[in-house]
Parts: sequence; structure tokens; C-alpha cells
Amino acid sequence: MEETLMEKLRRGDAPPALRKAAEEESLPLEEVAGAIVEGKAVFPCNRARSPERPCIIGGGSRVKVNANLGTSSDYAGLEEELEKLRAAVEAGADAVMDLSTGGPLDRVREAIVDASPLPVGSVPIYQAAVRAQEERGSIVAMTPEDMFRAVEDHCASGIDFITVHCGVTMRVLETLKANPRVADIVSRGGAFLAGWILHNEKENPFYEDFDRLLEIARRHEVTLSLGDGLRPGCIEDATDAAQVAELVVLGELVQRCREAGVQCMVEGPGHIPLHQVEANVSLAKAVTRGAPFYVLGPLVTDVAAGHDHVAAAIGGALAAMAGADFLCYVTPREHLGLPTAEDVREGVIITRIAGHAADIARGIPAAREWDLRMSRARKALDWEAQLELALDREKARRLFGERQVEGERACTMCGDFCAMRFISHFLGKEEVPVCE
Amino acid sequence: MEETLMEKLRRGDAPPALRKAAEEESLPLEEVAGAIVEGKAVFPCNRARSPERPCIIGGGSRVKVNANLGTSSDYAGLEEELEKLRAAVEAGADAVMDLSTGGPLDRVREAIVDASPLPVGSVPIYQAAVRAQEERGSIVAMTPEDMFRAVEDHCASGIDFITVHCGVTMRVLETLKANPRVADIVSRGGAFLAGWILHNEKENPFYEDFDRLLEIARRHEVTLSLGDGLRPGCIEDATDAAQVAELVVLGELVQRCREAGVQCMVEGPGHIPLHQVEANVSLAKAVTRGAPFYVLGPLVTDVAAGHDHVAAAIGGALAAMAGADFLCYVTPREHLGLPTAEDVREGVIITRIAGHAADIARGIPAAREWDLRMSRARKALDWEAQLELALDREKARRLFGERQVEGERACTMCGDFCAMRFISHFLGKEEVPVCE
Repeated sequence: MEETLMEKLRRGDAPPALRKAAEEESLPLEEVAGAIVEGKAVFPCNRARSPERPCIIGGGSRVKVNANLGTSSDYAGLEEELEKLRAAVEAGADAVMDLSTGGPLDRVREAIVDASPLPVGSVPIYQAAVRAQEERGSIVAMTPEDMFRAVEDHCASGIDFITVHCGVTMRVLETLKANPRVADIVSRGGAFLAGWILHNEKENPFYEDFDRLLEIARRHEVTLSLGDGLRPGCIEDATDAAQVAELVVLGELVQRCREAGVQCMVEGPGHIPLHQVEANVSLAKAVTRGAPFYVLGPLVTDVAAGHDHVAAAIGGALAAMAGADFLCYVTPREHLGLPTAEDVREGVIITRIAGHAADIARGIPAAREWDLRMSRARKALDWEAQLELALDREKARRLFGERQVEGERACTMCGDFCAMRFISHFLGKEEVPVCE
Repeated sequence: MEETLMEKLRRGDAPPALRKAAEEESLPLEEVAGAIVEGKAVFPCNRARSPERPCIIGGGSRVKVNANLGTSSDYAGLEEELEKLRAAVEAGADAVMDLSTGGPLDRVREAIVDASPLPVGSVPIYQAAVRAQEERGSIVAMTPEDMFRAVEDHCASGIDFITVHCGVTMRVLETLKANPRVADIVSRGGAFLAGWILHNEKENPFYEDFDRLLEIARRHEVTLSLGDGLRPGCIEDATDAAQVAELVVLGELVQRCREAGVQCMVEGPGHIPLHQVEANVSLAKAVTRGAPFYVLGPLVTDVAAGHDHVAAAIGGALAAMAGADFLCYVTPREHLGLPTAEDVREGVIITRIAGHAADIARGIPAAREWDLRMSRARKALDWEAQLELALDREKARRLFGERQVEGERACTMCGDFCAMRFISHFLGKEEVPVCE
């Protein structure tokens, strides 16, 4: 059987793509390789496909941003998904996931894998559930074989990482039932598996036969993203017994991944009040012995519909400062509908701002240098440089252009009374150089 | 001389407006009154004018949001300012400031004071600087008399709180010169006063003759907002010697305000990396012995132009969780131009999300209850209730409507495969009640 990346790295053999990725982040290769070997970083990269722009997640690297794509039963067009993919790539996402549940699932997934320069993730249980609904009349009529078949299909089609909700076990569901929630289960994969377990009175096949998952992941060099099927779906449910019970299970499975030479990361909440964000990250990092932590948000309030990307950016920045490595974006359309390409763009940009703020806090030199270049351009009233250095060049240029006035050297906020310009003279500095 | 609010409260005499404000926040009046007497809360309310909707800032109350209005030399229209005021009020701001530096300053300020149901703040030094530029040919030709005249004029016109940059002293400027910055001084008031001090080689009149400020503030019952003229204008300059030296001066002046029975709050940064936000708030609270802390942002990165309201919301949420009481909004147009009414709306909404997230973290019962109501509506797929409970009803309704599909009970994100609907049955709950 072919070696996995972890095994190659244990022998000191690093693939060129990893060397390049480490170099781009100015990280010593040995450090990155060591982190992957220890299970503290991942480099999702399917054996059959090498994404053009793979990325290191965890291990002291820059915080990464994922954009969720995918159809639903209401919007199932392939073209729209490819447009969303382009929007995500252009906005600077580091990875995308195809979460389709509507239309021709295989075709959509294969088209995204084909077109994406970024690592692509998916959630195979969605496909198993949709197929079971179509072919057997109900989601809970899925067989374990259906579930593993979907995993195999996805891995064989070049997917780089898959979410598997292995922690939704019979025992964890007992904990859930003993501690009722407002929003029960909001993870789709988590809900499908929980429904299956409760209806069939059988253990979660992904948990019971975890070795089979490991074997598939090994064969295709697919990174497992251990899903949090019981992530809290509202502030009231945050950090409850069921969530923590599931995390404990995931911690055990992380260890089994490491032993099998399979890369894995762990998914986290969800909706978490601001004062519990840091504790959630610390807990996950402790329980998983430092596995890369992939958070969805967390949203720090439930009432921000229309601006949930911002509620998520607040939680995401704080989570990433505390150690989360991978931020799943949230778009302005969250809780209201399937995102459009414009929503995708906005979601990626705002999540990148959160990640970048955390990178500064985490002492990543390139992050701080970027801000320093911007600040020097700002002090110099060098507008062209400022607009080029903006994380969102397009919007910065548009907003500046809409209000700027011919002949004004400062911006129109202060006009003649620009503090930046005014004070330089009195501090014995030369008149500020301006590009005109 | 008439008693000030602090003096009245010391006698146990609470004005009806304060009783009402405390009641609206479900706070015991004695607690609020005690906090104001100790200088840990303020209730900005000019003696000559009672704003329709005054608000308590600090003392365990809900985090408040301020929206900056005001003209510049490039956009000096009164009508636009009144439109921005309406946008701020409708979006749910708790206070506004008129920061005008262009056009007919008195007319704009008086019109805003007249039309605003909210407390109104201003920065009188702007007017003194603009007048000096017009009448004497240069800002640094202002006389101390000009400065105090502007303060007197603003207080007499009904302004409820004024920013006075009393901490920009000769000594603090020595500290600044000894510790050079990338962005020097970005506060307009701070820059004008620093330029004046350096050019005239005289002490800051607002510091030297602080008693005169106290006398004016007492007479009009105007709350002093001790400005941070040396707030850092970029991440690189954050938490430096000059910033901290100024804060120490402000701490001394807070004590003098309390002794004089004058309400005051303290202004804070600015641009601060995420990992220094909490420390900045703790420091300010310690040095000022718990004075209400009013922060501008803080922005946690310099490169978010076009989305600086989000960079500010991340810092603001964290600051407010750590104890900041009053968040000055930042709009998407920050660093690019004078905001429009639409920018004002967006700035207020996003800043309210940050404040609300902090309110939840600070354990304010009404904040948590709001989220709980939303979560119950969400679980019930009760769209009308969800849209009514959204902090930004208008945008939530628009985004939902744009993508919703006739006959769909869930939203179009998951359509037929809605986790919320699916799992209820298996948890032995009744079918989710839906409003149709």
C-alpha cells in the first residue's frame, strides 16, 4: 500500500508542493513537516489530484479561510456553483467545500474539483442521504454500505478533505436527550446520522467502522475533517454537555488517525457567546492534543441575520487568536437562504479580515508588515498605494472614487482639516509626499 | 450656582428622565445613581435641552453606540447631515456627534441639536480651528480665548457632551517626539492642539485652565469626554509611550471632574491589534478608576479599507466585553471619504451587533433573551418572527425575499434537507410548527 503524506514526512521526504507552500509562508520546512507528523497541521491534497494552490492548515501557518459552495433542492444550477467558485477564488479563499444537496450531485462536485485551484472538501453523507431519499424513500433507510460508498466516491473523484460526523454516537445522543436544547441539531450531516441512529437503533457506522474510513482516507490521501454534528445552533445551546461529549469522542478518533498515518482536523462551533470563545478553542486544542481546529464562525449572537458574516467574523477573529487554524466563512445570507456569488465574495473578504487580524495577534511577520506598508501609504496620503494595499481593492477603490473631490489631497472625511497632513510640519517632518 | 446631576444624585434626588432610562434597562435606580455619583457612569443631558431619548453610559448598562455626523470642507450640506441623523436614529444609534468642519458650523450644529432625539456630542476645538483658519489665516493662530469661546458656544447651544483633548500636554508631546510613530497624530483635535502647543511653545489651555472647562461644564451640565488626542492611528503605533502617557494625564483629570461634580468619560483608541485590546481596556479602567470608556473601534487591522466597520466591530466587541461602555461607530467609508447616509446606517447596525454580542457576554439578561426568542423562532421555522426579531429587519427581509422559493418551508440554504425540520421527529418532538 502506498505511503501517506504523514509517513513520507516521517522518513524526511517532503513533496515539492509542501516545500513551496512552506516557503510561501516563510516557514521552515522542518517545522511544517514536524507539525504534520505530530498531527498539529494538515496539508489536504488528494493523491489523484494536486490542487494548484494547496495550503497548510495549522502548525503556525497563516489562518486559512474556507468558502462553502453547493446547491440545494431550491437552487441546483451547475453554472451558479462555478460562478460562486470563481468568486471565492478571486476574493482570496484558501479552500472551498461543495455542500450540494440538489441537482446532479456528481456532476457538480466533479466540475468544482476540475475547476478549483484550491483544495476542495465535501460532506459525503449528504450524497448518501439524498440518494437514500430518492431511491429508498427516506434518509433513514440509508445502509452503512450507502454511506461508505459515498465516501469512496468522493475520495475517488479527487476531493482533498471530507467532513465525517463520527462523533455522533448512540451514547452522545443519550447525552443530548438528557440535556434538551432549543435548536437540537443544526448540522445537516449530524442530523442525518442522528436520525439514522435513533430510527435504526444502531451505532453510527462512521464511528463503529472508523477503521474502514481510515483505510479509504489512506488510500486516497484524503484529510478527514471530524465534523461536529452536535455543534450548538444558538447561543443558548453553546458549550453544553452534548457538544463537549462529542468533542471527547473526536479527541479519541484524532489519536487513531495519527496512528494510521491519516491527516485529520477537528470541526468546531457554531454559535458561541463571546465570553466562551477562547475557552472553546482551548478545550478543543487540549482534548485533541493540538489538532488543527476548523470553526464555523463562531457566531457571537443569533440576531444578526443579514449580517451573520460579521457576527461570525467577531467570533472567528477571537477564535483564531486563541488558536483556531481554519475559519469557515459565513455569508450575509446565512440563516436566510442559499448564498449568491456576491454573498460568497462578501463572506470570503470579511472572514479574511478576521483571519488577518488574528494573524497579526499571533505574531505572523508578513501580516504585521502588510499593515505597516498600508500605514506608511496612509501617512503619505499616497492613495494609489493605499488602494492597492487594501485587502478588498475593488471596494476600497469604489468607495474612495464615489466621494473623492477633484484637487483634494486628503480624503473628503477631513478635507482641508486633515490631521495627518497638518501635524507633520509641527513635528519637524517634511511636507507629506503625495502622489498626484 | 445650580446643582449638577452628580450633586443632585448625592442628595438622592434623581430626575425623571434618569428614572425612566434606568427602568428601560431594568436596572435598579440606586445602582445607576450610585455609579454616576462614583463617576462610573454618565447620563449626558445638557441643562438647557433634554434629549427625548437620553441614555446611561457605563455602570452595568447596555453597551451604547455613537454615530459621528458632520460636514467637511468637501461636503458641507446641511440637508445631507440631517439625512445622516435620521439614518443614525432609525438604525438604532444611542447618541450622535456633530464633527463638522465645513460650511455654516453653527447652523449645522443647531439643526442637529434641534432635530436629534438622542444625546448630541461635539468637538468645539474643530470650530475654534476652522474660525482661526478663516479669520487669522492659520489654525495655530487660535487664542486660548477662541478655544474657550467655542466650548462656551457649543455648551450654550444645547450640546450634551463635548470632546476636549486635555491630555495633549507639552510633556506628553515630548514623549511622542522621543518615541517616533508611523502615523504621528490622527485625531484632528489632538493634531490641532499639538500643532498649537509646538508652534506657540505654550501649554494646552484645556489642560492648564482645566478649572475653566469644569466651570463651563458645571454651568451647562455638559458631560466632558476626555479625548485621546494621541490615540494610535495604526497597528504599529498601538499602546505606545505617548498613548499611555496621555492616558495617565486623563486619569488625573477624571478625578478633578469627580471632585467638581462634573460627569466625564474617557476616550480610547483607535487602532489596536487584537491581542492588546483587552489590556488597553483594563489599563484605561484601572488608570481612570472605572470611568466610562468610549472607544473608536478599535480597528484590529489597517488593511480593511471599505470594511473598516467590520475591523472596528471585531475590536469593539472584544473591547466592550472587556469593559468598554460606549462604542463610536466606524463606517465602511472610514479612511476613504466622508460617509453618506447609507454608510451611517451600515456603521450603526454593525456597531450595534458588536455591542450586543458584548452585552450577551456581560450577562445582560435582555440581550440573552432576545437571542433566545430568535432561536426559538428559528427552530420553529417561523419566518415572520425571525425577520421581526432581526437586529436589521430591513436587510434580513430583503435577503430572505430575494432567494425564497414559493412553497418552501425551510430556507433555500437546505431546502428539502433542513436539519432543523428533519431531526425534530426523531427526538420525539412534534412536527415543527410553522407559520404559513
